Amino acid sequence: MNLLFLGTGAGVPAKLRNVSALALMLLEERNAVWLFDCGEATQHQILHTSLKPRKIEKIFITHLHGDHIFGLPGLLGSRSFQGGTTELTVYGPRGIRQFLEVSLKISETHLKYPLSIIEYGDGLLFEDSQFKVEALLLDHAVASYGFRITEKDKQGTLDARKLREEGIPPGPIYKRLKEEETVNLDDGRTIHGSDYVGPPQKGRVIAILGDTRPCKNAVELARNANLLVHESTFSGENEEMAREYFHSTTMQAAEIAREANVGMLCLTHISSRYAKEDWNRLEKEARTIFSDSKVVSDFTNIAIPFN
Amino acid sequence: MNLLFLGTGAGVPAKLRNVSALALMLLEERNAVWLFDCGEATQHQILHTSLKPRKIEKIFITHLHGDHIFGLPGLLGSRSFQGGTTELTVYGPRGIRQFLEVSLKISETHLKYPLSIIEYGDGLLFEDSQFKVEALLLDHAVASYGFRITEKDKQGTLDARKLREEGIPPGPIYKRLKEEETVNLDDGRTIHGSDYVGPPQKGRVIAILGDTRPCKNAVELARNANLLVHESTFSGENEEMAREYFHSTTMQAAEIAREANVGMLCLTHISSRYAKEDWNRLEKEARTIFSDSKVVSDFTNIAIPFN
Ligand SMILES: [Zn+2]
Ligand SMILES: [Zn+2]
Repeated sequence: MNLLFLGTGAGVPAKLRNVSALALMLLEERNAVWLFDCGEATQHQILHTSLKPRKIEKIFITHLHGDHIFGLPGLLGSRSFQGGTTELTVYGPRGIRQFLEVSLKISETHLKYPLSIIEYGDGLLFEDSQFKVEALLLDHAVASYGFRITEKDKQGTLDARKLREEGIPPGPIYKRLKEEETVNLDDGRTIHGSDYVGPPQKGRVIAILGDTRPCKNAVELARNANLLVHESTFSGENEEMAREYFHSTTMQAAEIAREANVGMLCLTHISSRYAKEDWNRLEKEARTIFSDSKVVSDFTNIAIPFN
Repeated sequence: MNLLFLGTGAGVPAKLRNVSALALMLLEERNAVWLFDCGEATQHQILHTSLKPRKIEKIFITHLHGDHIFGLPGLLGSRSFQGGTTELTVYGPRGIRQFLEVSLKISETHLKYPLSIIEYGDGLLFEDSQFKVEALLLDHAVASYGFRITEKDKQGTLDARKLREEGIPPGPIYKRLKEEETVNLDDGRTIHGSDYVGPPQKGRVIAILGDTRPCKNAVELARNANLLVHESTFSGENEEMAREYFHSTTMQAAEIAREANVGMLCLTHISSRYAKEDWNRLEKEARTIFSDSKVVSDFTNIAIPFN
């Protein structure tokens, strides 16, 4: 499970930072990729990575500002053109359906895969045996949401080597032991599955937030998360400007991370007013409040740590 | 007057060729730029040029396929964000209005300049004292148009030096002479403006066509043009495929150029199936039929020749 940042700029594309997009790579977990936001030229950014558009299973849109959605129609079309045939689900705030339906209709883009569009609000967006995705409204000029992605705990693994060493050969019995049943062997022994099953692996939690001022729901979504992705459009001294434009500063994002007790903070949505030389300073500002802060760039790839 | 190719690929963006866009630079003529088509990431391409989005005065859309329009909402928004305040007119086939209005509304993109959207069909789209733009329907899977841009002839310049040498000092009289009037001077001489005015400069004609199979209207639009921009999605041997997908080959484009008796042919909308090594071969194919053929690339800049 990795996060691959595809666009880490704010508002308009710049040479060094494209507009927003972030891929949650779930290749090992489900041979799939989930995209969070899809600013213009996200598919162009993807051309410079190993990401296959046909593997994109879900796209979550935080809010409908152009720098977060204008790459969607093109990406959906190219995914079809490049042979994608499996269903794709787009989750977005109310309005995403009209935008996509009109864009695809006007351009006569005929997708060769089923496209499902879900307009969501606060609450549970998706759940299966592996993952759960919840959304809460943040504080932005338009309805902007944050997501809490919860990986479910994994059952401990069965210690097959130990079983073989004790003369219990592989067979249907292993399945019962894995479910921690107590089993009577043909040789008279009684063994307990729990003695052969390792500890369960705690699932990870990632919080990915859309544009926002600092707010309670940001903390709520990020509570004890392994990793928080938070916007920081402005540097610490521009708190007033951040407030006026419904954004956050580096230090406000770091305060959210500290309050929520997360494992790591990724700062993104960096205004192009900050040149490359400034990025280190922005990161240092955040670290004065939350030490595991990182200002990410386009193509930064982060393995999600376990707690 | 220059043509700056911003996107010369077909269908989907590729690393070496972006989707369609072409800037007609009219900086000397009217301190303005006219854009023809606006595929996704056209504004990103512009970042690598000296073109200022606020100078874009008109955008002409040949047809509504995604690779020709998906960059429009983002470019319109960025033009505003970057301080553009002058009116912008978008000319497109029927449907362009709904696409733009829905995209701008959903994304809450509030432009700080007047945007005028004109849905056109065959005929005259625009005319002023300098230029005339006409459109005709071509032969594509959706309604696709070509444009004939006619620069008006320029009046000859008044030879002020010769006048001064003959003892006729500058004054209101120069304006009358420039209009080739006959004037009686105070010293009794009668002089004819036509003797002091150079030959008129013939305006140039450029034909810029959208995606199309070879067709009569292509020839019509390009007749005696100084320069023709024609798609050539496929190489000469793929005529059947070109027909099936409503496109042209290099050689078909060259035949149109020859038949229309143009000065120069620019081949664009090159499929990504052709690697960089193939581009030269494509150009050679076209030159077997029309010698002044050129396969253009992203950022190719061509001065429009006079005849
Ligand atoms: Zn926003
Ligand atoms: Zn087309």
